[in-house]
Amino acid sequence: MIDFNIKPLSNELDSEIKYKIDHKTKPLGSLGLLEKIAYQICRIQETTTPELSNPHIVLVGSDHAICEEGVSPCPQEITWQQMLNFANGGGGIGLFSNVYNMKLKVVDAGVNYNFSGIDNIVDAKIKNGSGNFLQSSAMTLEECNNAIANGAKIVSELHQQGCNVVGFGEMGIGNTSPASVLMHLFCNIPLEKCVGAGSGLDKNGVSKKLETLQKAVDNHPNLTDPIEILAQFGGLEIATIAGGMLKAAELKMLILNDGFIITSALLAAQAINSNVMDYVIHSHHSKEGGHALMMEYFKAEPVLNLDLRLGEGTGAAIAYPIIQGAVAMINNMTSFEEAEITDTTDQGIRVL
Amino acid sequence: MIDFNIKPLSNELDSEIKYKIDHKTKPLGSLGLLEKIAYQICRIQETTTPELSNPHIVLVGSDHAICEEGVSPCPQEITWQQMLNFANGGGGIGLFSNVYNMKLKVVDAGVNYNFSGIDNIVDAKIKNGSGNFLQSSAMTLEECNNAIANGAKIVSELHQQGCNVVGFGEMGIGNTSPASVLMHLFCNIPLEKCVGAGSGLDKNGVSKKLETLQKAVDNHPNLTDPIEILAQFGGLEIATIAGGMLKAAELKMLILNDGFIITSALLAAQAINSNVMDYVIHSHHSKEGGHALMMEYFKAEPVLNLDLRLGEGTGAAIAYPIIQGAVAMINNMTSFEEAEITDTTDQGIRVL
Repeated sequence: MIDFNIKPLSNELDSEIKYKIDHKTKPLGSLGLLEKIAYQICRIQETTTPELSNPHIVLVGSDHAICEEGVSPCPQEITWQQMLNFANGGGGIGLFSNVYNMKLKVVDAGVNYNFSGIDNIVDAKIKNGSGNFLQSSAMTLEECNNAIANGAKIVSELHQQGCNVVGFGEMGIGNTSPASVLMHLFCNIPLEKCVGAGSGLDKNGVSKKLETLQKAVDNHPNLTDPIEILAQFGGLEIATIAGGMLKAAELKMLILNDGFIITSALLAAQAINSNVMDYVIHSHHSKEGGHALMMEYFKAEPVLNLDLRLGEGTGAAIAYPIIQGAVAMINNMTSFEEAEITDTTDQGIRVL
Repeated sequence: MIDFNIKPLSNELDSEIKYKIDHKTKPLGSLGLLEKIAYQICRIQETTTPELSNPHIVLVGSDHAICEEGVSPCPQEITWQQMLNFANGGGGIGLFSNVYNMKLKVVDAGVNYNFSGIDNIVDAKIKNGSGNFLQSSAMTLEECNNAIANGAKIVSELHQQGCNVVGFGEMGIGNTSPASVLMHLFCNIPLEKCVGAGSGLDKNGVSKKLETLQKAVDNHPNLTDPIEILAQFGGLEIATIAGGMLKAAELKMLILNDGFIITSALLAAQAINSNVMDYVIHSHHSKEGGHALMMEYFKAEPVLNLDLRLGEGTGAAIAYPIIQGAVAMINNMTSFEEAEITDTTDQGIRVL
């Protein structure tokens, strides 16, 4: 099992950051959330001149044998079809990572398909799909730790290539089921509030999904260790992503959270090492039911609220230009002095 | 007085637009507001392959003699200082228009300063500041119509240069006062809900501002014509911007609304010709008090909610990459057919 050595952020530079932001030619505080984002990135990078370099979306895919229990109406083949589509620059994340100048790394953690010979899908496959966690477990402890280690390794390699900002995305038919259970167990929120229509279940389907997941949870009443919970109920992509997030925080990279599934990975990551949260920007409010409660749990202030519920890391990619704007602001926006403008900062005046 | 011939949008292409968006490789409706934005731009451009070309922010500045009544704590010189700053690429809008690849046009509609010899400030000056509307009027009817015509001319020229998307910004110490009165009169919202701290008034200052504006409104109880209201209580930048918006709509350009002041210009524009609204995207929820009520009045669904209250068109610039994403989606995101993915659209399944 890997240990992650994540340093909590220091407030040491805060007065310097504050001076710099407050003396920009603008009313005090008038750039709202952009100012908060700038603070956070300065603290992460321990500088008042932060940079975003070689930004990536890491998209991890897996299948889920829990689908055997009828928790998703979607054919499982869509997982591998979409993985190939992403690898070719298609799909939502292929498009948006390209539009917003992020590189996309597509990772196979457990898709039930043979991608051998496909260059641009990273092979981090543990097995052909997470196990059916009603009948047995999603992973063994060893498999779970290996998935975490794989995620860590992939992010380490990106860091070596100069990447200091990474968003996460996922693909996996059926993965709202593990995500709902993880949310239930890590947030201590009643399961019925964590289970939604996922990929298009009707009311009956949702009832049956809830029943199935409740049975699975009831089979294991005494799990408290986060790795044990993740191994029993998680998904291979979720464990891989949790490992990637933890390593990103250890390496002082900025982490862009996404929607329901990615946030379930973050819940696992923070249960393993809560310092990871210092490095996270929540990119958006997802329209997927449980996500709002996850954001409440984190007391999060997500960047966007566009009613997205596509997954794939698309929220992280679409929020990225706003993050870039915040960094550009602290680096390049004129100060009162530079612009030779009457400085009303000391009077606390919100110059318009 | 100019007439604007603004064509209301047709829904003629809607089924084609819907087919195209719904067959992208994503769950139905899962791109939320981006899908709505794509619809609107397709309707404006009457095509299912829309384009954004030569995007501009038009920033218009003016001074306001109503400041003589003590409605703003800020020194008036900041208006001309900031105009020069913007023209040099500084300030919030200089920064963000550059970051998001929009061109910035800085326009003097009535700044109390001589910019002659400064190439990159467009001279559309009517006079050195809007009049004190408590003692007399902000503009004569002729001046107001000339300002509207100036805005129209500037936008026409941009259109001739291939621009089809324009955001508006403003600079003018004291301009929350005219904006508040316009909001009161055009939205029929009690004046006290339209008046805020503006550029940093304390509680006493806000009371005095409300009292001053109420007196001014009471002096002219029978105004109903929108041009007469705009001339009496508006600002030279506000009238110029209203003219720019109306011409943009006539030319079937996409209009990006901004914060409190720009929305007051939009209120005037829609009172003159309500079809203008079909061409508007509301870029953000401003933190300036009255703006939320303006958005309610318009039943608007703004793109961003970042607690911005800087003005200058910064909200429009920061929202622009999201608009670009919506256009890229309808043009370039893969369809189920292109990506050879099992198409579940007909079953209404929200594929994840």
